[in-house]
Parts: sequence; C-alpha cells; structure tokens
Amino acid sequence: MARGTVPARTIEVRVELKEGILDAEAESIEKSLRELGIRELRGVRTARIYTLSFGDLSEAEARRQTARAVDQLLANPVVHRVHLAGRRP
Amino acid sequence: MARGTVPARTIEVRVELKEGILDAEAESIEKSLRELGIRELRGVRTARIYTLSFGDLSEAEARRQTARAVDQLLANPVVHRVHLAGRRP
Repeated sequence: MARGTVPARTIEVRVELKEGILDAEAESIEKSLRELGIRELRGVRTARIYTLSFGDLSEAEARRQTARAVDQLLANPVVHRVHLAGRRP
Repeated sequence: MARGTVPARTIEVRVELKEGILDAEAESIEKSLRELGIRELRGVRTARIYTLSFGDLSEAEARRQTARAVDQLLANPVVHRVHLAGRRP
C-alpha cells in the first residue's frame, strides 16, 4: 500500500470533570434548559472530545503520543478524568 | 421500586463542527502539540459532549426533550453535526 493511502491511526480522548468538581458550563446549560421548558431534566454534564490522528504509527505508539498530549496540554489531573479510545475513522 | 430509586434516563449529545468548518481550537491544539514534539500528528478534531439526565421518562420522550434542547440551545445546524446516543449510567 502506498504511503499516502495508509489510513490514519486515530485516538479519541475524552476529558471530563471529576465527580465533585463544579461544572459551571453544565450548570448554566441546565438553568437555560429548565427556562426553555425541557421537562423532567435531572442534570447535565459536559465533556470534551479531542480526536488525534497520527500517520504511520502502531496503536501502542499512538497511545503513548496521545498520553503525552494529555499530560502536557489536554487535561489537568487535579480536576479531570480522562479516557482514551482507539478507533479507525 | 420507589420513585427515588428509578435510574435516570441518560442521553448523550455529541456536537462537532461539520467538515469544512474551521475548528480554531483544534488548530491551536495541533500547533501546540507539534511544538511539544508529539510525533507523526496528522490532525486534531474537537467535539463537545452534553450528557442530559432525565427522571421518569421513556427513552423516546427523553430523546424528544433532548432534540428540543439541541435545537434551542446546544447546537447550530449551520455549522454543527449532532449525534444522540441513549445510555444507562
């Protein structure tokens, strides 16, 4: 297979606030939705997804690079819970 | 089962920018990750997850309420692609 046609190795990073950490955006959305008359709403949580695509890397190496990206930029271990999932686009 | 113990009906809303719409946050993250030496990075995409929990509603009704929330607050159909998924927490 030619280099240009190698499918990207894609890792999806899900970053959400730990339980007990105030999710101010979610609270604001919840208030707005109640005002809009959305019935029986009990709660709202938010999360952020970062989808990183890599070139010619093994899944293991792509996960290592993604873990570095999480540690150095995408999440704060004090307040965030992080989940990584590999996927083919 | 007592009312207080009915498990919440939870719908997860995934909002992402349509292909071709500039994802400025993703571009900024991509630039930073390259500067941090993350190897073989081809691209970054971002998405937002909103998890809405409802009380005593059917799945169909919870999806209807969630669709209203999406239309009225969570997404802009001009620029966003939206995916709903039901789940039990």
